[in-house]
Amino acid sequence: MTGASGAEAAGAGEFGFIARHFRPLAGAESLDLRDDCALMRCPEGEEFAISTDTMVESVHFLPSDPPETLGRKLLRCNLSDLAAMGARPHAYTLNVTVPRGGRHDENWFAAFSRGLAEDQERYGVHLIGGDTTSISGPLVLSATVFGLLRHNTALRRSTARPGDEIWVTGTIGDAALGLLVLQGSLQDPSGFLAERYHLPRPRTGLHLHGIVSAAMDISDGLIQDCGHIAEESGVQLVVDTEAVPVSSAAASLGHEWLMRRLCGGDDYELLLTCAPERSAALQAACQAAAVPVHRIGTVRTGSGVRLLDGEGHEIVPEQGGWQHF
Amino acid sequence: MTGASGAEAAGAGEFGFIARHFRPLAGAESLDLRDDCALMRCPEGEEFAISTDTMVESVHFLPSDPPETLGRKLLRCNLSDLAAMGARPHAYTLNVTVPRGGRHDENWFAAFSRGLAEDQERYGVHLIGGDTTSISGPLVLSATVFGLLRHNTALRRSTARPGDEIWVTGTIGDAALGLLVLQGSLQDPSGFLAERYHLPRPRTGLHLHGIVSAAMDISDGLIQDCGHIAEESGVQLVVDTEAVPVSSAAASLGHEWLMRRLCGGDDYELLLTCAPERSAALQAACQAAAVPVHRIGTVRTGSGVRLLDGEGHEIVPEQGGWQHF
Repeated sequence: MTGASGAEAAGAGEFGFIARHFRPLAGAESLDLRDDCALMRCPEGEEFAISTDTMVESVHFLPSDPPETLGRKLLRCNLSDLAAMGARPHAYTLNVTVPRGGRHDENWFAAFSRGLAEDQERYGVHLIGGDTTSISGPLVLSATVFGLLRHNTALRRSTARPGDEIWVTGTIGDAALGLLVLQGSLQDPSGFLAERYHLPRPRTGLHLHGIVSAAMDISDGLIQDCGHIAEESGVQLVVDTEAVPVSSAAASLGHEWLMRRLCGGDDYELLLTCAPERSAALQAACQAAAVPVHRIGTVRTGSGVRLLDGEGHEIVPEQGGWQHF
Repeated sequence: MTGASGAEAAGAGEFGFIARHFRPLAGAESLDLRDDCALMRCPEGEEFAISTDTMVESVHFLPSDPPETLGRKLLRCNLSDLAAMGARPHAYTLNVTVPRGGRHDENWFAAFSRGLAEDQERYGVHLIGGDTTSISGPLVLSATVFGLLRHNTALRRSTARPGDEIWVTGTIGDAALGLLVLQGSLQDPSGFLAERYHLPRPRTGLHLHGIVSAAMDISDGLIQDCGHIAEESGVQLVVDTEAVPVSSAAASLGHEWLMRRLCGGDDYELLLTCAPERSAALQAACQAAAVPVHRIGTVRTGSGVRLLDGEGHEIVPEQGGWQHF
């Protein structure tokens, strides 16, 4: 892990800062964050799955979000990408760009790294390197995560086939509604929706190779992400909107929030396609990991995404509606 | 490569943006930037060296810097870390956080990615993934680079031994003076110093395993980085300041800039230690790669960094001087 360099020479204080807050998170491959690079081997017959994400204050998280959750959210969003390809979490790098003269003091960073430590244990990952810099602007966090998987076993977006069923894990739309709760435009006394916005639950630990035909994680919103599978696979996804699983907290807000749930982002659930004859195996694999999974539609020949209501009628979006996501 | 997600759902325009500016840079391992992760294998008997850096506008580069150089500078700073460990460049991820409503338009990004394309060819690397986000603040760029090297051949900072000689590649202090030129406080009609600030020349392509005893790249300033080797190796580095190589452009500014050159950052040259009996091999290896190399001192038992003037007398820094870097 290097400190800020160049125009802003790293002070001795910065190295102490790294030692205090980040060295305890570092694995052996990091060389204790003391050298120019981390060194990482790949077990024979395996390859790395690599994903990177940036989160910007006031864009991807709120200035009022607790520091304990910020690094965890960044890590979990990336781990969700690993889950989407069927890779098991291994390690990550972290780049922290800290506002000058702000509230990001020792206590803030102690809470930030405490959250990371908790998730490192939960997901079996360790820090291998990073960079700390300063900014006259908002907090910016980037992580690059590394997963491992056997050669030629990665789940892909481009391999859905007509006749497949469409499945999703968990419930959809909670985080999007949670953001509205945190912004004060919705009420959720249970706290469940805000929790889902702060801390996604990446679906690592599922063993879906040989079972599903395609997979991705839902980050941009269910409908938009269905569109990605449709485009990459050259198929049409037909979604039964009434079958899309909803949490009790979201359901209690009423049916008028349906489209917001389907178009909102930050779910970090898995969107899967599966041949009908493999659906029992899919349900068994999810049950083994205690992950709820529901069928929400069918893959057909064609292109794009079609939405059906509870009676099988197509929902024609208003001008400016979901198609523009 | 993923677009901004969550609170800021990615628009169709953003996917086109990635396709136009970044897909041409992407290698096969990126899966064409169309999936959740990149997939990267490691050749048998080798391991990855991994380094990550963030550059922030107005901290690590100037708002007036040409866009062609920004991605290249970021990439080269990271490649310098690979060079320091003796790894050959392979691939990188790129996170771009773009100021809203600013001057970072299609033309800006075309120039930015054109610069990257040039350096990809020069250094033999390719893009494998990334993220684009927006910010109400300055431009922030992060890259994580991947190099390859044979198992157990990495050069380290922690292995310098008393009796070794200290060597550096290239000339020292040019970029630090170049920054002063760009800020208007120094004159350099040749343009050489500003060029060295904009575009470091990472010393990849040297084969130093089995020759040097320790290595790191000089990013925080020669003296501070000598201190890193001293600390990590448990030795003292004695530097003959008059032997530190100086460019014609820097020399023409006069001897009063010596300490600035030795304390400034952004050199991205290599700082090496080498047993005396291996110094001929070191010079031959550098000559084979057309990289100048000069001996600047000696490793001794003890700790810290000592500076000698041309007559072998110790330079005692003033209060508040270089020791505080």
